[in-house]
Amino acid sequence: MRYALLIEYDGKDFSGWQFQPGLRTVQGVLEASFRQISGSEISIYGSGRTDTGVHASGMIAHADLPDDSVLTIAKMLEGLNATSGYDVVVKDICAVPDDFHARFSAVSREYRYTVINRRSAIERNTAWQVLSELDTVAMENAAHLLIGNHDFTSFSKRSEDVNHYRSIIEVAEWSFEGDRLIFRIKANRFVRGMVRALVGALVSIGKGKLMSEEFSELLNSPTELDRARFISPPEGLNLWRIEYPPEFGLW
Amino acid sequence: MRYALLIEYDGKDFSGWQFQPGLRTVQGVLEASFRQISGSEISIYGSGRTDTGVHASGMIAHADLPDDSVLTIAKMLEGLNATSGYDVVVKDICAVPDDFHARFSAVSREYRYTVINRRSAIERNTAWQVLSELDTVAMENAAHLLIGNHDFTSFSKRSEDVNHYRSIIEVAEWSFEGDRLIFRIKANRFVRGMVRALVGALVSIGKGKLMSEEFSELLNSPTELDRARFISPPEGLNLWRIEYPPEFGLW
Repeated sequence: MRYALLIEYDGKDFSGWQFQPGLRTVQGVLEASFRQISGSEISIYGSGRTDTGVHASGMIAHADLPDDSVLTIAKMLEGLNATSGYDVVVKDICAVPDDFHARFSAVSREYRYTVINRRSAIERNTAWQVLSELDTVAMENAAHLLIGNHDFTSFSKRSEDVNHYRSIIEVAEWSFEGDRLIFRIKANRFVRGMVRALVGALVSIGKGKLMSEEFSELLNSPTELDRARFISPPEGLNLWRIEYPPEFGLW
Repeated sequence: MRYALLIEYDGKDFSGWQFQPGLRTVQGVLEASFRQISGSEISIYGSGRTDTGVHASGMIAHADLPDDSVLTIAKMLEGLNATSGYDVVVKDICAVPDDFHARFSAVSREYRYTVINRRSAIERNTAWQVLSELDTVAMENAAHLLIGNHDFTSFSKRSEDVNHYRSIIEVAEWSFEGDRLIFRIKANRFVRGMVRALVGALVSIGKGKLMSEEFSELLNSPTELDRARFISPPEGLNLWRIEYPPEFGLW
C-alpha cells in the first residue's frame, strides 16, 4: 500500500532532505521513525531535495507499507510525530494509487523566499536580512522577466544528472508585508540552486548593483558564468507547495 | 543625554527581560554591550518586564549617556548590534527629553499572541500549537467582553508591588491567517501573567471547556481563583508596541 506524506520542517538543524550516512537529514529522521513504529525498513521518496538550512512547509514524499502492515493512517501520523523530533512535522498522510510517485508525478513546485529589509532577531532563521536600501520596483519589474520558458544555466549549479537547464515559470512575483519582502516562484521544474541564485540576482538589482538588462541577458543567452556571483542564504527559502494531477486526490 | 531604544528580541534563549545575576537576560546583555562600547556602566530601563521565553518586536527602553560621551546614535546602533548577540536587535535609537521614562511615560501597551491550530515545526518557537478543534466564533465573542475597564485579579499572578488589578482594554480581538490565530490586546496597563492567562481562558472557550458566561463572571466579580487554570505557553507571546505621548517624538 502506497501513502503520500505532507511534511513541514525547519531546515536549520538538518543537513538537507536527502539521506546521508552520519548526518542528520529529514529523510533519515523519517526513515528512522518508520523503523521505530513499524519494525521494518521503509524507504521514503521525496519530491526533491532541499539544501542544508532550507525549510519546507509543503514537502511531499511517498512510502510503501508492506501488505501485512497493521498501521492505520491515524497511527502513522501519531507515531511519526511522536518519534521524529522537534523540527519536523508530518501534517497529513493519505493513501495513493501505486503509480503515484512523489517526484515523477509532480506537475509543478512552488517556493517562497523571505527577505527582511533590516536586522531581525525573531526572523533570523526564516528570512535573509538585507540591510541595504532596496529598489523594490526594480525587483518587481525584473521578476516579471522570469515568466515563461527560459534556460537557467546561468543560475544553476552544474550537475551531471540533468540534460538541460530549461524551466517554464508560471509565477514569479514579490509581495510586500511591512519590511518583509516575499518572493513567490512556481515552475514545472527547478534546477539546482536556482531559486537562491535568482533571489540573489533580484536583490542585487534592488541594490542597484546589477542592471535588469544584464539580468535579462543572462536569462536569454545562458553563459558559463559563475553562479556564485548570485547567492542568497538558505534560511530565507521554503519549499511551499507541490502540485500533482487531480486524479491522485492529494491536498 | 537620554536616549530611547527600540528593541526586538527572540525570547527563547533569555531568562526574560530583567537583569538577574548569573542568568542571560535581555537587559543584562544590553548593559554588557553598553559597557563594551562605551567603557562605562550605563543602566537600561525597560518599559516593563517580559517572562522567560516571551518575545518582543517593540520593547522600549531608555538609557542615560554621560555628558562627555562621544558615542553618536549611529555608533551606538552599530556597536550594540555588533556586540549584543544573535537574538537581540536594537532597531532604532532616538534622543529624548530628560523627563522621558520608558516605563512611567508609556500610555498604552500592545501584545500579540499567536496560536497555531496544528502541529508546526517552523513556528514551534513563535506560536502555541493547539491541536484540538477550536470554536473561533466563541473565542471572538468572548474577546469582545474584555473591552472596557475590568478587574483582572482572576487572571493575574499575585504581587505585592501593585495596589490594584484593574486595566482598561482598548483593543481585544482575534484575527485569522490560515491556520494561525492572532490575538491582539491593547491596554493602558497589564498586570503580571495577564495576557497568557486570558489567552489560556479564550482557548479553553474555543475548546468548549469554559463557558463564556463563566469567563464573563470571572471578569466582573474577581475571585481568588487559581490563575494556573488558565495558562498559555510563553512562545506565543510578543510585546508588540508601546505608545507614548506624541510630544516625546518617538516612533
